Amino acid sequence: MSVAIANIGELVTWEPDQPIRHGAGLVVEDGRVAWLGPSSATPAADERIDAGGGAVVPGFVDSHTHLVFAGDRAAEFAARMAGQRYEAGGIRTTVVATREAGEAELRKLARHRLAELHAQGTTTVEIKSGYGLDVATEETLLRVASGLTAETTYLGAHVVPDGWTADAYVDLVTGEMLTRCAPLARWVDVFCETGAFDADQARTVLEAGMAAGLQPRVHANQLGHGPGVQLACELGAAAADHCTYLTDADVSALADSGVVAGLLPGVEFSTKHPYPDARRLRDAGVRIALATDCNPGTSYTSSMPFCIALAVREMGLTPEEALRAATRGGAESLRRDDVGQLGVGARADLVLLDAPSHVHLAYRPGVPLVKRVLSSGVLST
Amino acid sequence: MSVAIANIGELVTWEPDQPIRHGAGLVVEDGRVAWLGPSSATPAADERIDAGGGAVVPGFVDSHTHLVFAGDRAAEFAARMAGQRYEAGGIRTTVVATREAGEAELRKLARHRLAELHAQGTTTVEIKSGYGLDVATEETLLRVASGLTAETTYLGAHVVPDGWTADAYVDLVTGEMLTRCAPLARWVDVFCETGAFDADQARTVLEAGMAAGLQPRVHANQLGHGPGVQLACELGAAAADHCTYLTDADVSALADSGVVAGLLPGVEFSTKHPYPDARRLRDAGVRIALATDCNPGTSYTSSMPFCIALAVREMGLTPEEALRAATRGGAESLRRDDVGQLGVGARADLVLLDAPSHVHLAYRPGVPLVKRVLSSGVLST
Repeated sequence: MSVAIANIGELVTWEPDQPIRHGAGLVVEDGRVAWLGPSSATPAADERIDAGGGAVVPGFVDSHTHLVFAGDRAAEFAARMAGQRYEAGGIRTTVVATREAGEAELRKLARHRLAELHAQGTTTVEIKSGYGLDVATEETLLRVASGLTAETTYLGAHVVPDGWTADAYVDLVTGEMLTRCAPLARWVDVFCETGAFDADQARTVLEAGMAAGLQPRVHANQLGHGPGVQLACELGAAAADHCTYLTDADVSALADSGVVAGLLPGVEFSTKHPYPDARRLRDAGVRIALATDCNPGTSYTSSMPFCIALAVREMGLTPEEALRAATRGGAESLRRDDVGQLGVGARADLVLLDAPSHVHLAYRPGVPLVKRVLSSGVLST
Repeated sequence: MSVAIANIGELVTWEPDQPIRHGAGLVVEDGRVAWLGPSSATPAADERIDAGGGAVVPGFVDSHTHLVFAGDRAAEFAARMAGQRYEAGGIRTTVVATREAGEAELRKLARHRLAELHAQGTTTVEIKSGYGLDVATEETLLRVASGLTAETTYLGAHVVPDGWTADAYVDLVTGEMLTRCAPLARWVDVFCETGAFDADQARTVLEAGMAAGLQPRVHANQLGHGPGVQLACELGAAAADHCTYLTDADVSALADSGVVAGLLPGVEFSTKHPYPDARRLRDAGVRIALATDCNPGTSYTSSMPFCIALAVREMGLTPEEALRAATRGGAESLRRDDVGQLGVGARADLVLLDAPSHVHLAYRPGVPLVKRVLSSGVLST
């Protein structure tokens, strides 16, 4: 099965020598990009799509979500907008609702959300556990997640559940819970933050996960300065996500280590915290990813275009830098070469926009510009 | 033709005694709301829709747009995000492109944009001229607009075109141009701002329009303090739109006169100006409307849900106040009783959300939550 797309006004591939082409064509074969060139030279294929001068960009890579949960926290959101402050403990509200829901209900809810992401152009998504906080529910969450994506993350250490001491809970997270969850996950993550886990506890969680074959990523420096980023760099984590409060030493450590800084501006939009300074990170040579952090407490957006618009408005990125962070940056955060770009050989995950240029993702905020989505070459929208 | 909607988790009607109902049903007959009550008592109808527990809200009333134009200004946007300042003169770029486009092309572009608004829940829209700035093109723009909405606004006095003095252009706007445009418009508007028209010129434009049977509205106090709001109040305009820079006297004048303050936060998002202080206006008893100002220069969003999210995040409104401003407030700005609310007898313009509550419009920013739209009782999405 092959698909040819002709008359692409702007084609973003991120190829080193020509990251953005104009007047281009593209051919997909067997789910991969097989040919790139001028539109007029586009070879024949089983199916032909006329992009009508619209832009084609790589499918978005959302490297940080919490899609498997039950309930919502709209009331908490409304209260916070009226002035109440967010503390990490709000997570427990979702834990209660999630434990009460059965696996079938959780799967149905997560599938609905995944379809929502996909319709907005996201073709690769990371999904974390972390709303179970007991062995059975964490395992359930990862079973649901692993039915939806290859990028599953074990986040047993999201917060300390009620009735536990932190140390006792870390024993569980690094013991029986890990044993049951590790086969279902690719990544191990920990919320290293005041009110969640300190540096020693977080190191213990990550090292146990790594010993079980998982690769580390960290929730770091969201609510204030702290040790999370340095820990991520020390352990060679793939990503340190949030990075809202950084010292110069944190920025240097990120640049030197190659750890990807995951920026999640939906959180700052929805919590009224200051936005992370993406410009500072870029200028220091830090690799950055944009992601939604889709979750019911602090960022219930599933829209990567919205995050791109925020990154341009609030975080000092150009539209091109923001799109790169939302595609190639996400792929780097997940240590993937096959997605987030559209060079020959890449997975044919791509988005056709109802707009002539990727700039419109920021220039037209809130507007659903995603016209069609190809996932591994399969047209779905 | 009648339509019954049952199983509405939350129904926003803005009825004085019960503005929001839960577990409700609604029946539409002949394009009007004919019945409201508990879901279980919903009468039979020709067609039945199960809202599935989702929220139903009045269709959005977008009281300020410039939908008829050609070209875009993505490059100007990108430059501005990189630090360049917006001046009113950028409008002339769009004037050149609009004059070059023929009427058929302008109609096609505007229809595409109107469909985009409608898919996002907007069921009443005001459309201005103002990118022609010569007699023939202004008339063309209003002919196109009047094919799309009853709420057409003559904005010949958008900026002074190249090659004219302001006074000579005001003579044209209040002379031959008005004669040709007045039959196609309901409203007359003027951009009263440094770089556009001063108070005396703006008064001349509005009074001439009023003498020709048009009702006044004003672009006021967008880029700095100025006389626009006071002029709107003096003339009893329906609306003073933008209201970003207001003195206490301006706020008092708005409250005392009943002129609706139209707030357009897409502009501030896209120009990095400070947001208007909606809280201050509400607390002073000013009636407020939220609108997109959809235009290619300063706010190319067409999304009322995005404006609601910004009003909550940036302007101090609760989700309920923001929704009210985007529906009832827009109707007040257009002096309409039949839209922006869903009491019995109202026009059956309504939006079914893929969410249990209107709060999600702000809680889930950027996410396309509009599931179905009824316009005068006709299901279109």
